Amino acid sequence: MCQPPAVGLAITLSVLAESADASAALVIPSSPVGEQTDVETVRAFARECDVVTFDHEHVPAEVLAALEADGVILHPSRAALVFAQDKLAMRRRLTEIGVACPAWAQVREAASLQAFGDGVGWPVIVKTPKGAYDGKGVRVVGSPDDVADWLSDVARDGAQDGGPLVDGLLAEQKVDFVRELALLVVRSPSGQAGAWQIVETVQTGGICTQVLAPAPDLDPRLAALATEAGLRIAGELGVTGVMAVEMFEVRDPQTGDPAYLVNELAMRPHHSGHWSIDGAVTSQFEQHLRAVLDLPLGDTSPRAPWTVMGNVLGGDHPQLYPTYRHLLARDPGLKIHLYGKGVRPGRTIGHVNVSGADLDDLRARANHACDFLQGVITE
Amino acid sequence: MCQPPAVGLAITLSVLAESADASAALVIPSSPVGEQTDVETVRAFARECDVVTFDHEHVPAEVLAALEADGVILHPSRAALVFAQDKLAMRRRLTEIGVACPAWAQVREAASLQAFGDGVGWPVIVKTPKGAYDGKGVRVVGSPDDVADWLSDVARDGAQDGGPLVDGLLAEQKVDFVRELALLVVRSPSGQAGAWQIVETVQTGGICTQVLAPAPDLDPRLAALATEAGLRIAGELGVTGVMAVEMFEVRDPQTGDPAYLVNELAMRPHHSGHWSIDGAVTSQFEQHLRAVLDLPLGDTSPRAPWTVMGNVLGGDHPQLYPTYRHLLARDPGLKIHLYGKGVRPGRTIGHVNVSGADLDDLRARANHACDFLQGVITE
Repeated sequence: MCQPPAVGLAITLSVLAESADASAALVIPSSPVGEQTDVETVRAFARECDVVTFDHEHVPAEVLAALEADGVILHPSRAALVFAQDKLAMRRRLTEIGVACPAWAQVREAASLQAFGDGVGWPVIVKTPKGAYDGKGVRVVGSPDDVADWLSDVARDGAQDGGPLVDGLLAEQKVDFVRELALLVVRSPSGQAGAWQIVETVQTGGICTQVLAPAPDLDPRLAALATEAGLRIAGELGVTGVMAVEMFEVRDPQTGDPAYLVNELAMRPHHSGHWSIDGAVTSQFEQHLRAVLDLPLGDTSPRAPWTVMGNVLGGDHPQLYPTYRHLLARDPGLKIHLYGKGVRPGRTIGHVNVSGADLDDLRARANHACDFLQGVITE
Repeated sequence: MCQPPAVGLAITLSVLAESADASAALVIPSSPVGEQTDVETVRAFARECDVVTFDHEHVPAEVLAALEADGVILHPSRAALVFAQDKLAMRRRLTEIGVACPAWAQVREAASLQAFGDGVGWPVIVKTPKGAYDGKGVRVVGSPDDVADWLSDVARDGAQDGGPLVDGLLAEQKVDFVRELALLVVRSPSGQAGAWQIVETVQTGGICTQVLAPAPDLDPRLAALATEAGLRIAGELGVTGVMAVEMFEVRDPQTGDPAYLVNELAMRPHHSGHWSIDGAVTSQFEQHLRAVLDLPLGDTSPRAPWTVMGNVLGGDHPQLYPTYRHLLARDPGLKIHLYGKGVRPGRTIGHVNVSGADLDDLRARANHACDFLQGVITE
């Protein structure tokens, strides 16, 4: 999705692709195939680049270290990326700089998890710090028994002085939130920074199915506070490029005022910012390119009163084309963005954007398009 | 410029490029290099395509005929393209279907040109029917002597029964116009059609330097009549894809009412439609792809009250990058589109778009950006 703005800005992209039919490789002339985990492959690739950036956070730290030792310019840097790769490091740093987060604890054994849960109230959320582990990296936990397997892996990794759970687990208070918000910010190496309007991320079955830009009826004071926090995080953590800050909107337990708690950080263009492709003067993808090249940043203003992004999930029918034709005919204002991926049930295969003045109408159109492409409805 | 929308629509482009560093070849993975005039090269290329379309009108008729004989799907077809390739055929056909044009005549010798000029008044415009010839294909002519060289070529080509001027020259009344307008229409093979708002094309020294979308203060009745004419031309000529209709706004000599005369046709996305990339829900490039694939067409509505397109010409300084950085910093709302071409004085190397509510402000910003990129001003 960086290729469309790169064309206009005359920026030449090269992507280290996981396979020749990877989405990015289909649309970028220079797309060598190689493993992101292989140090020599990545070093050879990076030698041809002026700047290296990332479309996910899973490039291993030792690969990043080798690139930095070679003098490769990485944006974001390894020092910043650690806070997107390691949730314990992220929680510790955000707490140090005074950003509101859910109550949290680093736990290595059942007793400390029990004490944490007894303090904040059960159930609690337990996460593996370095992302997906054992299929999923997040559990809602009613007692330490529910993560007995993870705790035994923590003990094993600690005894070996290595392994993915050597630092233990991250336990967090289960937040009683009003809704989920996301803030997209950007920061360039020379320190210019910007933020888009805060959006609401609508979750269905644990998946973000819709994004409403801006978040309806958001308290202006909360918007200002949360935006200030996002920009401060970007500056304090030395983030370069686009960063998404996923947040919970909550009520302040003392005053009842709207407040935020930061949930997760992603240091790259993020699905919560896909609305900006059609809904903002400068999209997150154009802005990410401008930021990592240390070009002046673009205007983040919205182009319309509302933009709704709908996440398109794969359904049972592997052929998208007939449904896609139907949708183009039904809604000439719909902007469809497909990723060129094979269709599999539940896999994100694209998104749609609709912009206008009537939020209910836009939500209905986005819902229809996603349901139709997924095959949940057939007319 | 078709590649950005093709990415989102998951349409795979392949371009027969004139060289490996052609603009399109820089951004499209499948870009075989070959001559558009070589029948076998184009046939081999077309065999790999579902649909073949064009970014200029210069593919020879015999090449198009060979493709159609092979069963290749061409949009626009050879039968439609002739009206963009041959200005005499275009004038004859438009006159047949009752579209208002400047007074015109096909002339083969000085006497008939003299008679035409004496009838409509000197000077007249004389054009070589099949586009650029002898460097330029258009002259303002005070007497037949001013095209004596062309007329002698007409005689030679007529005697040989072949050659570019075998059909003679096109003479046209020099129109006393109020301003120049352009209408962009689109038509799909199954007959769906659409039109964008009519724009004003501002010419400086014979070059279109700025496009104002929509044309300011355009008489609504004239807009409706001209749009109806454009759609009728597309239907009657069997145009598929995007077509630009360049027009003169004139005063009706009887009534004094605003009226139009059709000047030129272009059967492809056109510089008068570049504003639509940022200023319309569906850009001319997305629409052209949708049309030639016979997909349902998109909404042509504007996204903003005004969009101004500025044509960026190359200047004396071959390095664009420093000026480009400065402009991004000066105007965060400016959308820069560069074509990846080498900079040469006077060559079109890109364009800029700015959208908003204040036309004067937008025009000043577009002017500044173009002048700065060209090196006419330095701050």
